[in-house]
Amino acid sequence: MKNEIINFEEKFDNFKDYWSPKIIAELNDYQFKLAKIKGEFIWHKHNKTDEVFIIMDGSMKIEFRDQVVELSKGDLYVVPKGVEHRPSSEKECKIMLVEPKGTVNTGDKINALTKDLDVWI
Amino acid sequence: MKNEIINFEEKFDNFKDYWSPKIIAELNDYQFKLAKIKGEFIWHKHNKTDEVFIIMDGSMKIEFRDQVVELSKGDLYVVPKGVEHRPSSEKECKIMLVEPKGTVNTGDKINALTKDLDVWI
Repeated sequence: MKNEIINFEEKFDNFKDYWSPKIIAELNDYQFKLAKIKGEFIWHKHNKTDEVFIIMDGSMKIEFRDQVVELSKGDLYVVPKGVEHRPSSEKECKIMLVEPKGTVNTGDKINALTKDLDVWI
Repeated sequence: MKNEIINFEEKFDNFKDYWSPKIIAELNDYQFKLAKIKGEFIWHKHNKTDEVFIIMDGSMKIEFRDQVVELSKGDLYVVPKGVEHRPSSEKECKIMLVEPKGTVNTGDKINALTKDLDVWI
């Protein structure tokens, strides 16, 4: 999938499901994933890695145990390794995640919301 | 520098110099850097890492020995490890780079264009 121009808008047009990150690019052993989100996700953490959220369109919240962070289009936020968080968005929000290959969307919680790790668009 | 909301527009307002990437965030041992570019850079390659270009505003070209790639706002491109490339832009273009800590802007060429590695904004 390298050596092609990746256009975010075209890639977002390729899927509709919420909370299901799709891989668009790899950088060494890291991946760039697009996701559409709406509603409330679950509390989880990633024990082995930080996770970058970039807001591509709309706005979202990330709840932590001690604060709530409100993010809008054009913001980037780093959720540190091992820190519990719960993303949510009242309206549809488009985000890009950057994280190592093999990072599970639900972190330490494996349940019905856990998505296949290897879906490219 | 973690645990803060990083707004791209605010960060771009903090500097004017071309071809001088500024660090805005770290994800494990990777860094997100903003740069303004205009004119032609030098041919170089990064022998140990891929490099991600994200076009935040404007448009740019990346020349390779066998092709030229034209990129515009909303595009992402992965320059593979070890591949010679020369970025350029006729007008000012704003980009974000994602690469491992310690990646030198001029890659295998150290010269007057080589910038200090550790400039945060």
